Amino acid sequence: MEIGFVGLGKMGMNMVERLRRDNHQIVAFDLDDAKLKEVSTFGADGVNSLKDMVARLAPPRGVWVMVPAGDPTDSTINQLAELLEPGDAIIDGGNTNFHDDLRRAAVLAGMKLHLVDAGTSGGIWGLKLGYCLMIGGEVDIFRRYEPIFKTLAPPGGYDHVGGHGAGHYVKMVHNGVEYGLMEAYAEGFEAMHKSEYKLDLPKIANLWRQGSVVRSWLLELTANALEKDPRLEQIRGYVEDSGEGRWAVQDAIDKNISMPIITMALFTRFRSRVDKGEGTFGERLLAALREEFGGHPVIKE
Amino acid sequence: MEIGFVGLGKMGMNMVERLRRDNHQIVAFDLDDAKLKEVSTFGADGVNSLKDMVARLAPPRGVWVMVPAGDPTDSTINQLAELLEPGDAIIDGGNTNFHDDLRRAAVLAGMKLHLVDAGTSGGIWGLKLGYCLMIGGEVDIFRRYEPIFKTLAPPGGYDHVGGHGAGHYVKMVHNGVEYGLMEAYAEGFEAMHKSEYKLDLPKIANLWRQGSVVRSWLLELTANALEKDPRLEQIRGYVEDSGEGRWAVQDAIDKNISMPIITMALFTRFRSRVDKGEGTFGERLLAALREEFGGHPVIKE
Repeated sequence: MEIGFVGLGKMGMNMVERLRRDNHQIVAFDLDDAKLKEVSTFGADGVNSLKDMVARLAPPRGVWVMVPAGDPTDSTINQLAELLEPGDAIIDGGNTNFHDDLRRAAVLAGMKLHLVDAGTSGGIWGLKLGYCLMIGGEVDIFRRYEPIFKTLAPPGGYDHVGGHGAGHYVKMVHNGVEYGLMEAYAEGFEAMHKSEYKLDLPKIANLWRQGSVVRSWLLELTANALEKDPRLEQIRGYVEDSGEGRWAVQDAIDKNISMPIITMALFTRFRSRVDKGEGTFGERLLAALREEFGGHPVIKE
Repeated sequence: MEIGFVGLGKMGMNMVERLRRDNHQIVAFDLDDAKLKEVSTFGADGVNSLKDMVARLAPPRGVWVMVPAGDPTDSTINQLAELLEPGDAIIDGGNTNFHDDLRRAAVLAGMKLHLVDAGTSGGIWGLKLGYCLMIGGEVDIFRRYEPIFKTLAPPGGYDHVGGHGAGHYVKMVHNGVEYGLMEAYAEGFEAMHKSEYKLDLPKIANLWRQGSVVRSWLLELTANALEKDPRLEQIRGYVEDSGEGRWAVQDAIDKNISMPIITMALFTRFRSRVDKGEGTFGERLLAALREEFGGHPVIKE
């Protein structure tokens, strides 16, 4: 089907490429000519104004927005709202706070525009393996864009989880869980790194992948990172966060939910940024994992 | 090849069954005639004295010990040591503390007997899928029993990780990581259970399995448990532990290693046992997961 696409960053560019493989018609907006040239190599149309993008789409229009959460998303949605017509829809695939979805959906509804929130997981591997899509909003609008979701996701990898904000809510919790899982591996490999036994950590990561209770995709990425650099000497243990873990903890506080280890996993990241040294082995593994799954920048030694 | 087998519990019985599929010759000891009868259905020989077991094995003998850690393992190994001859080997597949391996290996070495420590993960699924085996001890003795390890493990699922105790050390850390992973999911599903959105938790668990960063075998088991009982109403949130998480935390304390979330995951289990009520949703999920992977008993509502 035909959609507009705003946000040709690392994630957005890959998503357009994946959508083009199934021959969806994409009208992509960017101010950067190099990005438009890149997107044209996949057979997408590139335009340098949102007005042109909207003009090229047939109603009812759908526009996927994949820009940083907060002000950039607000600004993009506000501009689109001025250009779109009743019945059109905006799909926010970014890492938006679900409270923002609720606010924006109400404003857009007053203009007879629809908002779909699509929590998106899969990082830089999504191009090849597909993105897990957790989708909130009106069911009939979700149905309208199912061909898009189906192309972006692996089999069984997209679903409607609830009303406005539910998709980003579930993605927020997903990221909180992700922090906890990562920190669990970080602590275990930290212990083994410091063990009196001279342990071959890449070997153990690969061994655990076969039949153990702790096997997972993050363990596969751990093995990848350790194979490249078994003592993680090339990387600093400076661990960023992109905000969703904070929101998960804030939401738990709002609702009297005990969330000790996700909270501690978040605080461990804050601690990792204090001294800007090499960090602990566990912190270096966390940074390495963020690079492995998300292509997030790391500080090299 | 031929080995003796002591300990026909839940794990041991499955292991003998799996070993028989590759036609290894097993002489199994148990005092319970029903267990000996069961083991004979797989084509293993059953005996009701350790002396008879040892008499039936050709030197150099190998005996797999799969009994509860601590006193039962000490007692079994001490009895075997009296019966075995120089060159024979004991393989401890139980959840032994690695400090005990070091102590026992030294005593056995004085009698020219060998000890192999085989940390074993995979729970009740090991029969079908194979066990992940983390093996410590002398390399040449490890090599001697490789045909056994190869049958018990899935492809790539066994390896020699270091000297005496290294196998159980790595298994101990594995279980610490397991506690952290389980608690991360427990906190995330607890939050979603209490969310203002009426979320379909089995659907979300299955959705996350496809392309998300948090996909794992424990998530697959989470989906299984939630499909059977979406609100976990049939189970109490009373979460046992089998000791290895405690040892992992004690070891971290001995070595000045920061292990906040594994420690907190352990303490969360202690807390779950205080009131003996239905527990939080997260605690109920932890209990359900232990049943799913290990067949550990749960308290039903």
